[in-house]
Amino acid sequence: MSVIETECLHSLIQLAQTHKPKPDPNGLVFGTVFTDHMLTIEWSLEEGWQKPHIQPFGNLSIHPGCSALHYAVQLFEGMKAYRGPDNKVRLFRPMINMKRMLKSAHRACLPSFDCAELLECIRKLVEVDQDWVPHSDSASLYVRPTFLGTESTLGVKKPNKALLFVILSPVGSYFSTGAKPVSLWADSKYIRAWRGGTGDCKMGGNYGASIYAQYEAVDYGCQQVLWLYGDDHQITEVGTMNLFLYWINEKGEEELATPPLDGIILPGVTRQSILELARKWGEFKVYERYLTMADLRQALEENRVREMFGSGTACVVSPVGRILYQGENLHIPCEGSFPPLASRLLKELTDIQVRHQTHNTLHDIFYSPI
Amino acid sequence: MSVIETECLHSLIQLAQTHKPKPDPNGLVFGTVFTDHMLTIEWSLEEGWQKPHIQPFGNLSIHPGCSALHYAVQLFEGMKAYRGPDNKVRLFRPMINMKRMLKSAHRACLPSFDCAELLECIRKLVEVDQDWVPHSDSASLYVRPTFLGTESTLGVKKPNKALLFVILSPVGSYFSTGAKPVSLWADSKYIRAWRGGTGDCKMGGNYGASIYAQYEAVDYGCQQVLWLYGDDHQITEVGTMNLFLYWINEKGEEELATPPLDGIILPGVTRQSILELARKWGEFKVYERYLTMADLRQALEENRVREMFGSGTACVVSPVGRILYQGENLHIPCEGSFPPLASRLLKELTDIQVRHQTHNTLHDIFYSPI
Repeated sequence: MSVIETECLHSLIQLAQTHKPKPDPNGLVFGTVFTDHMLTIEWSLEEGWQKPHIQPFGNLSIHPGCSALHYAVQLFEGMKAYRGPDNKVRLFRPMINMKRMLKSAHRACLPSFDCAELLECIRKLVEVDQDWVPHSDSASLYVRPTFLGTESTLGVKKPNKALLFVILSPVGSYFSTGAKPVSLWADSKYIRAWRGGTGDCKMGGNYGASIYAQYEAVDYGCQQVLWLYGDDHQITEVGTMNLFLYWINEKGEEELATPPLDGIILPGVTRQSILELARKWGEFKVYERYLTMADLRQALEENRVREMFGSGTACVVSPVGRILYQGENLHIPCEGSFPPLASRLLKELTDIQVRHQTHNTLHDIFYSPI
Repeated sequence: MSVIETECLHSLIQLAQTHKPKPDPNGLVFGTVFTDHMLTIEWSLEEGWQKPHIQPFGNLSIHPGCSALHYAVQLFEGMKAYRGPDNKVRLFRPMINMKRMLKSAHRACLPSFDCAELLECIRKLVEVDQDWVPHSDSASLYVRPTFLGTESTLGVKKPNKALLFVILSPVGSYFSTGAKPVSLWADSKYIRAWRGGTGDCKMGGNYGASIYAQYEAVDYGCQQVLWLYGDDHQITEVGTMNLFLYWINEKGEEELATPPLDGIILPGVTRQSILELARKWGEFKVYERYLTMADLRQALEENRVREMFGSGTACVVSPVGRILYQGENLHIPCEGSFPPLASRLLKELTDIQVRHQTHNTLHDIFYSPI
């Protein structure tokens, strides 16, 4: 495996001559403002990984025949850097993102890389732009690694050139205007991912193909899509988030359930953290299991559903209030608009992310002090 | 619908100061050499379509946050311009490509355009670079329109900015080294497209996701993937081509069959042209129908298979000689390495494309004289 040469990183930093004004983190629209610098690392089949560059943020010069633009030979990651009350900046479990990125690269036929080395390059980039990490306990700096095939030929093949780059974007609190449970459109007309596809990787194609359904959900008066799968309408994901159901299951057990990682589910870092937290608590069953719309509907009829919520890097948790399914509105309990388990998970995870308080519940959360 | 302003096109042509040497069309690797010019047309939600530009071929300047790079908000088309014995240059049925491109744009949440206007811009581009259309009856100029979401934000949404561009690449004869029937790896491990997805559109994500399987086919000693679908292993496409089976069907009828356009099959222009030609001939049944591996295996056992071939813009037709399926090599009849029906289709279509001879078999083939 080729390695990214980090030892020379320091000498390849080109600082921006001018600095953009920092925005007020309140009211920031996700992913619209970028910092002063970016990281770029080029790879070629002949020469392997080149030296990483930290350089002023700016447009990329891309050959119009490159496979990232024609065949979506591309993938991305998403994670956040938080500023704690101690003024230190930390990334939340970034090695999980690095490993998932490596898995996506394998599936996309992009080259391998050393996860620790890439993380060190990202750490350095965040350090250079550390003033952009909001001084706020509800805002953060979103870190977006991207990896593209850049071979300038039209053959559908493994690229012999690639570009890995990382950009940074300050983001406000997801719930700055108050938590509002989301409404979902559940229909099998559009399928997000399928077995034998790429749904378990963070490849661009999964996302572009989903946008059309999102607008159809809006046409039906809903905010997001509840992605179903199979003839039995399995519940898989919601929008661009993983999904959790907190309920009394068929056996009468109190259970937090989420679909298993069977190839069509993105292995979310927040998903994994919620499962680990809840298992540590040991207060109820925690299962990765299949859930169908019939299961959900029956449980709602029998008052066995307590909460349903999405999980992701942007929001941590996002409660679900209503599902439109087969012409019927299914109302999900949503006590006080942000139900108890979702609130507790949001608080505990935010404490870990921002305030670095673990309550001794998680041993393996990985911090990368900047 | 916003329109592309073609009336001003002539004034927006910026000719290249230097001209690259034209390559020998024999031995050209597909999509590796590009002409001197390219067409670019920008769109924004606020201002609609901007004036088209024909300009010297060169790199694109792309914002690193744009949705084409992160979420594969991108699509493409592929068609060819041929130089006839009369030295005139013609595009083969380009309006079908334009309409398919518009359908892809709709699915990708990219803006609409006027097909005739875009075709006129492409015609003009080919005219500017007409010296690049090979003087050869077996080579041609490949035309690659591409359409990208270029909004510079990370939200997964309809882009408010887009870029449509067209590049040209001279290509040699697909069969310059002699026709060789291809071997296929048929396995349900990877699925190209699924109902509720984007398999009937030419969106980049369909292609990037397929490359990994292509290399696994090579590992199994095969050249391309035979894409299967469903528990009954329906035969759908081969590599990046549509698929035809010429056989004696279950009812004892002589039949040319290809899978129907049910949402997972790309509506290929060559596919459509083969169906139309064969229906005009009226010599055997021509059906769009489901075909399973069990159907194929049984027909092979009963000596009912005559030919199998892929169809696409690059090769026109490409005979299949062997399929590796469930550990067994299925040998497809392939008389003289290029079987009679495939040969006849190749000749008739090439005659239409290059020599503009229709044999009065097709009324509706559309020519665009340059």
